[in-house]
Amino acid sequence: MAVGPGLQDTLLPVSGVRIGTASAGIRKKERRDLVVFELAEGSQVAAVFTTNRFCAAPVQIARQHLRTNMPRWLLVNTGNANAGTGVDGLVNAQRSCEALAALAGGTAGQVLPFSTGVIGEPLPIEKIEAALPSALGALQADAWLLAAEGIMTTDTRPKGASRQCDIAGKTVTVTGISKGAGMIKPNMATMLGFVATDANIEPALLQSVLREAADISFNAITVDGDTSTNDACVLVATGCSGVTITQEHGLAEFRKALASVLVSIAQQIVRDGEGATKFVSVHIEGGKSVAECRQVAFAIAESPLVKTALFASDPNWGRILAALGRAGIDDLDVSGVSVHINDVLIAEYGGRAASYTEQAGVNAMQPDEIVIAVGLGRGHCEATVWTCDFSFDYVKINAEYRS
Amino acid sequence: MAVGPGLQDTLLPVSGVRIGTASAGIRKKERRDLVVFELAEGSQVAAVFTTNRFCAAPVQIARQHLRTNMPRWLLVNTGNANAGTGVDGLVNAQRSCEALAALAGGTAGQVLPFSTGVIGEPLPIEKIEAALPSALGALQADAWLLAAEGIMTTDTRPKGASRQCDIAGKTVTVTGISKGAGMIKPNMATMLGFVATDANIEPALLQSVLREAADISFNAITVDGDTSTNDACVLVATGCSGVTITQEHGLAEFRKALASVLVSIAQQIVRDGEGATKFVSVHIEGGKSVAECRQVAFAIAESPLVKTALFASDPNWGRILAALGRAGIDDLDVSGVSVHINDVLIAEYGGRAASYTEQAGVNAMQPDEIVIAVGLGRGHCEATVWTCDFSFDYVKINAEYRS
Repeated sequence: MAVGPGLQDTLLPVSGVRIGTASAGIRKKERRDLVVFELAEGSQVAAVFTTNRFCAAPVQIARQHLRTNMPRWLLVNTGNANAGTGVDGLVNAQRSCEALAALAGGTAGQVLPFSTGVIGEPLPIEKIEAALPSALGALQADAWLLAAEGIMTTDTRPKGASRQCDIAGKTVTVTGISKGAGMIKPNMATMLGFVATDANIEPALLQSVLREAADISFNAITVDGDTSTNDACVLVATGCSGVTITQEHGLAEFRKALASVLVSIAQQIVRDGEGATKFVSVHIEGGKSVAECRQVAFAIAESPLVKTALFASDPNWGRILAALGRAGIDDLDVSGVSVHINDVLIAEYGGRAASYTEQAGVNAMQPDEIVIAVGLGRGHCEATVWTCDFSFDYVKINAEYRS
Repeated sequence: MAVGPGLQDTLLPVSGVRIGTASAGIRKKERRDLVVFELAEGSQVAAVFTTNRFCAAPVQIARQHLRTNMPRWLLVNTGNANAGTGVDGLVNAQRSCEALAALAGGTAGQVLPFSTGVIGEPLPIEKIEAALPSALGALQADAWLLAAEGIMTTDTRPKGASRQCDIAGKTVTVTGISKGAGMIKPNMATMLGFVATDANIEPALLQSVLREAADISFNAITVDGDTSTNDACVLVATGCSGVTITQEHGLAEFRKALASVLVSIAQQIVRDGEGATKFVSVHIEGGKSVAECRQVAFAIAESPLVKTALFASDPNWGRILAALGRAGIDDLDVSGVSVHINDVLIAEYGGRAASYTEQAGVNAMQPDEIVIAVGLGRGHCEATVWTCDFSFDYVKINAEYRS
């Protein structure tokens, strides 16, 4: 049921990163559900995490390890989120780090743990411990696609992107993967995203470019408005290309490549949104601030009534007006608002456009890819949010998730 | 598909109110879609309206008429919301008031108009004008049930309640009706609610008791989080019982009767929520303020993941924790939170309760009526919100709404 293009790039290896995967049988037998990233010594690691107060045990442990260590390994499991698991969850997350460190010759603090899957069930730590030797034995540079498969939950396809940029005659590679299809309204990060580059970037700059790129990618998508307990996005800079990025050197090129990778893997999440049949860009312009444009965009993108109309290809644009009318802009002058669906002017001056015909609206709603463009007519700021429609299959997938 | 009891009371006439209904063929032929309330001279009228910025033309006109007139008639149509209709919508709403006034012998300013139905289509004013004589010819005291039927849209059953209270040996009657099944997250009022009493109450007190009762009834329900453009709730006090309610006389009894009517007709909306198979009370206690309790309650009640789990009778309580974790209480200590589903303790100390078994959870989720009770463990305030689950039929109803 995914909409439009999925993973289209060859996922290029990143010098300094090796990846090993294994089947631990955490939730389903014989599926790849354990992924280890080994990072070259000296790698810098930046990360953004969920703002959910019920954040998962691995998120808490990863944050803590990141504060005082230079991470050398990322350990990811799917099938179990290790969230809502209390003190036992913290113990299990830490124990998984210790097990990996013991096998790989490091300390538990050098391991960042990540989990995704069902919330509230105990992490089967023994199964993870048992599969770790197999994952470490499989370490290789060219395994990003295997890793993308190894972190999927209700995803129907793996998600990833690669870009290269030329900086002073040398090539820098950025490769990233992501997962997620439901419980998607990242707030600082997506469900899980792992991105690496072989450039060398000092930590503060690395964190700032990640946060900036996450804001226009993962933080601009929504499937169902439900912020996960486990959201995390990691950016690793190994430095193995020998290219150092600074404020003065190569930053613009690197930013562009990084944003392109993050926007691609964020959009792939929406295209694979649970039950999705349409990929929808909600573009708001003419706002007084980016914040109010985002607020309106999310109100439209998350309205169950707008989303079911999109599913039905029904140009029920009144629902778009109703959603933007309740978006919280108290002094909105509705007579200045205009709404387009895929280049068809639908509404202006607070009502239906004079030029609008029902047939034009029906035609505009047919494609798999829809752009809803709203002009607020009160300023010069803009923002875009990506979402999908709300179908029978969303209900089916989420009603049957644990059965 | 409605859940549990619908309209159970005999809807008692309210002295001073006569009601006439007719079939104007606004959207469907031969269905009752036009309702006129005639109010005795001297009646006081209070109202609360939607906060949606794209509020419908009749809402704007009703607000304006109410500011400067003592209303004598309420004119309600279903089948067309007259919202998102720009200047033409205002002209049509005003024209409908003029037509009624001309026939009934009053002024347009004495008529409050209300519309519900599809947004964004021109109001068929000629059809309404043509049917008005028939509605006026049918005026009678005992027609509340006909009126409840005459304001339905996707509702599957009429909604109403009656209560009587004894004040100093005299009987005061309160009767109300409501409609609404989707686009339900009233913010000041519901889709449409009309309530009348034969008590005499001065305007400021009438407005304050209405607002207070609306806050614990219409403003405490949600079906899909979509605030309508047409929400309005009207409370009429005809004074025909000869009983005058003041701060010092009969206020407690009257408040209780009014709250009981409003809570009943608000809950009937949720029970008839689009596609609903479960009626769910979300009760939050132990909060620092009522506002934060309501915020958490709505985050849970509107989570698509919680609602699909309710539809599946799946005790996927991790989704409840995830929803409350993103509800916006930044300093929430999750270790103090407890969650019950229908008397089964599910979670405490940030994780699954030691006493919890999956079977107990499965059993707790079976009934049609579910109580989700959350203790925040940080204060002494509480709030309750009512909602329903999210089913295939919600998607079906809203995907096919205009077809």
